[in-house]
Amino acid sequence: MATDPQAVDPLAVTLRAGERTPTGVIENCIDRIDAVEGDVQALVPESGREPRLRREAAALAARHGESATRPPLFGVPVGVKDIFHVDGYQTRAGSSVPAAAITDAEATAVRRLRDAGALHLGKTHTTEFAYFEPGPTRNPRDLGHTPGGSSSGSAAAVAAGMCPLALGTQTVGSVIRPAAFCGIVGFKPSHGRIPLDGVVPFSPTVDHVGTFTADVAGAARAASVLCDGWAPATPDEQPILGVVEGPYFEQATPAGRAGLDAGADALADAGYEVRRVSVFDDIEAINDRHDALTAAELALTHAERFADHGERFADTTADLIETGRTVGVDELVDARAATREVRAQVGERLHEAGVDLLLSPAAPGPAPAGIDDTGDPIMNLPWTHAGVPALTVPCGRVDGLPLGLQVVAPFGADESLVAWGEGVAAAVADVGSVAGRA
Amino acid sequence: MATDPQAVDPLAVTLRAGERTPTGVIENCIDRIDAVEGDVQALVPESGREPRLRREAAALAARHGESATRPPLFGVPVGVKDIFHVDGYQTRAGSSVPAAAITDAEATAVRRLRDAGALHLGKTHTTEFAYFEPGPTRNPRDLGHTPGGSSSGSAAAVAAGMCPLALGTQTVGSVIRPAAFCGIVGFKPSHGRIPLDGVVPFSPTVDHVGTFTADVAGAARAASVLCDGWAPATPDEQPILGVVEGPYFEQATPAGRAGLDAGADALADAGYEVRRVSVFDDIEAINDRHDALTAAELALTHAERFADHGERFADTTADLIETGRTVGVDELVDARAATREVRAQVGERLHEAGVDLLLSPAAPGPAPAGIDDTGDPIMNLPWTHAGVPALTVPCGRVDGLPLGLQVVAPFGADESLVAWGEGVAAAVADVGSVAGRA
Repeated sequence: MATDPQAVDPLAVTLRAGERTPTGVIENCIDRIDAVEGDVQALVPESGREPRLRREAAALAARHGESATRPPLFGVPVGVKDIFHVDGYQTRAGSSVPAAAITDAEATAVRRLRDAGALHLGKTHTTEFAYFEPGPTRNPRDLGHTPGGSSSGSAAAVAAGMCPLALGTQTVGSVIRPAAFCGIVGFKPSHGRIPLDGVVPFSPTVDHVGTFTADVAGAARAASVLCDGWAPATPDEQPILGVVEGPYFEQATPAGRAGLDAGADALADAGYEVRRVSVFDDIEAINDRHDALTAAELALTHAERFADHGERFADTTADLIETGRTVGVDELVDARAATREVRAQVGERLHEAGVDLLLSPAAPGPAPAGIDDTGDPIMNLPWTHAGVPALTVPCGRVDGLPLGLQVVAPFGADESLVAWGEGVAAAVADVGSVAGRA
Repeated sequence: MATDPQAVDPLAVTLRAGERTPTGVIENCIDRIDAVEGDVQALVPESGREPRLRREAAALAARHGESATRPPLFGVPVGVKDIFHVDGYQTRAGSSVPAAAITDAEATAVRRLRDAGALHLGKTHTTEFAYFEPGPTRNPRDLGHTPGGSSSGSAAAVAAGMCPLALGTQTVGSVIRPAAFCGIVGFKPSHGRIPLDGVVPFSPTVDHVGTFTADVAGAARAASVLCDGWAPATPDEQPILGVVEGPYFEQATPAGRAGLDAGADALADAGYEVRRVSVFDDIEAINDRHDALTAAELALTHAERFADHGERFADTTADLIETGRTVGVDELVDARAATREVRAQVGERLHEAGVDLLLSPAAPGPAPAGIDDTGDPIMNLPWTHAGVPALTVPCGRVDGLPLGLQVVAPFGADESLVAWGEGVAAAVADVGSVAGRA
């Protein structure tokens, strides 16, 4: 299926200038949904979606008649992963427990988008409670493949051109992996940079809000609205890039490794200084602690719901909750402490190596075939554990399926990451098939 | 030492009417502090307290020149347990860890009092992190005895007449027990009824904010400002009272039991219908689960601080953290679930017995001698576990030391509890020495 992601930034600029209207944009979205949603199934069904969208677009246009007063995302349609609470909508979180068991106040992230003029296109499908049990969504790049998870519908909706921006969350690899699988940009800011209130929790120590966009400029614009205290960076110099090697990198498949190598070559050709950096000698320990942490926190955050409605949980999720119950408070405390240690370790390793950004595969390889398995988040895990900002940009293909280049910065350096990320994305944009290297 | 608690209500009424001024009230407080604080040591030292209080009293009076606009606690001096964050003040929490390791935004409870016109008299001493390691405070009723804990300074400040109102917290028995030991009224509303944000957490599942006042009317006025959605009750009928018996009650000492019996007799003499009700056949299991819950949550809430500054923690507190680390997530999940079950069980037992309120000893007996041990919270534990509202009113004496009658209502029935509590307090106010019964 041909995909046609829309970029946030030219759209927002033309909307604010009055060159396009929210109504016109929404009609295009509706047309696109009509054309592809039957195959892709990115959106949670909503009766009366079309008249509602038309009504809201007209009301928004009426509210901001003067272009000078139009907010930064004026008229930009946004998909919202169905674990964010949105006033007026049920939150189902990909679960079959009663909606009454999943209620809370509206998410700050959702409110910030609305206050910035965004239009709520609709809820997008998620795996059950943002873990592994998949929803119905297919990868717009190849309907025979998973879009990844857990933010499956948000990644697919943007990749399929239904909306230029969508919200997701990442507890292991649920933003970066599906963005890479769907050939778009995913951005997960530093932990806590986008408030988590009003989002169904999985593992609060490592839950992150993130975004899906067609390009890095769109991620930057969304971040400026979503993040606490965003201050755009304009770095004078090109970043020095560190390409990861060592046990962490060796978790990737040959295809994933080939994609990183091809990206590194393209960046070197574009004039970037590229160094090899070994990180995470103890990657197995980090993986194990993250597994224990997320399982234990899932058991804690879902305890009441699971006690009341355990039979409605998929076996996948129920098994993780049962595993989480076997964790000790000592392990949980130590795993939480380890997240802070790994955060510091990433910063130190970057500093020692004299590099500004680290590059790694966004996933072990391209999207797996079928939609029963959302793929492996192992390449995202340590960065999520550390809470450092991560971005994925499209970088090469294998068998026609996109690969992602994962770009990581020290904790809190979100603004530099997206500022430099635009150049990195441009340099690797023409990496073609890496099949021969794999 | 003669104590002279000031009642909130006549004071607030005269202040609002302009019959007294905030400045006049503050001068009285300063005099009282000068007279008794050297012995009692209820207040955390503050340099420049007196000029600050005079300045704030004058500013408050200037801001509310018209009596019609004066807020409900206009000019009422309030003591604040030093685990509440107050803008402009360090939070030390009875600890010797650096103040920089105990920071957060101002507590909603503190803001509500200030918005209601209260004057911040000062921080009051707490045991270390609201557990057992005592501060320097002595019981104003008898300086040779503990005021109880963990809200030691708040109870003592009110009992000694330094301020008519003080804030405390209760995770096991830290409001009701010190209020009883000091011969005043303590009120702990239902769990969550007063927001816990900005309060150093101990065990969030069972942490409660509560108040100390001279009488029940003062507790009601404070609750109307502090609680979410307070709607004063005016019950038509006298409550039917259930006096607890069974294994829970048998945890009290002969003196504590004698106090309850004397109170029940006085209430029957005053015309109340009094029944005997057995509650908590499984009190040992409740006690054990509460101990595991609070230890585990202390280990979790203080993990980072303990990792960074463990050597600054008292052995008492460090030992509980170490115990908490041995708890399993399964035990923690089960203990949290048990709090909801016990809450329901209390409501059902009241309903089955046809009683409106339950009466029990507020402590096993009077305040122990010495200040190295803040006494035993065991009589408060199941009510805190259940999150149901609890009130203590003075009821009898042993060896000149006050006893408290603990009055409990079903979850959410806070308004009925204080409405009925005034009559209960009046009926037992003249219970004298119960030494002969013990």
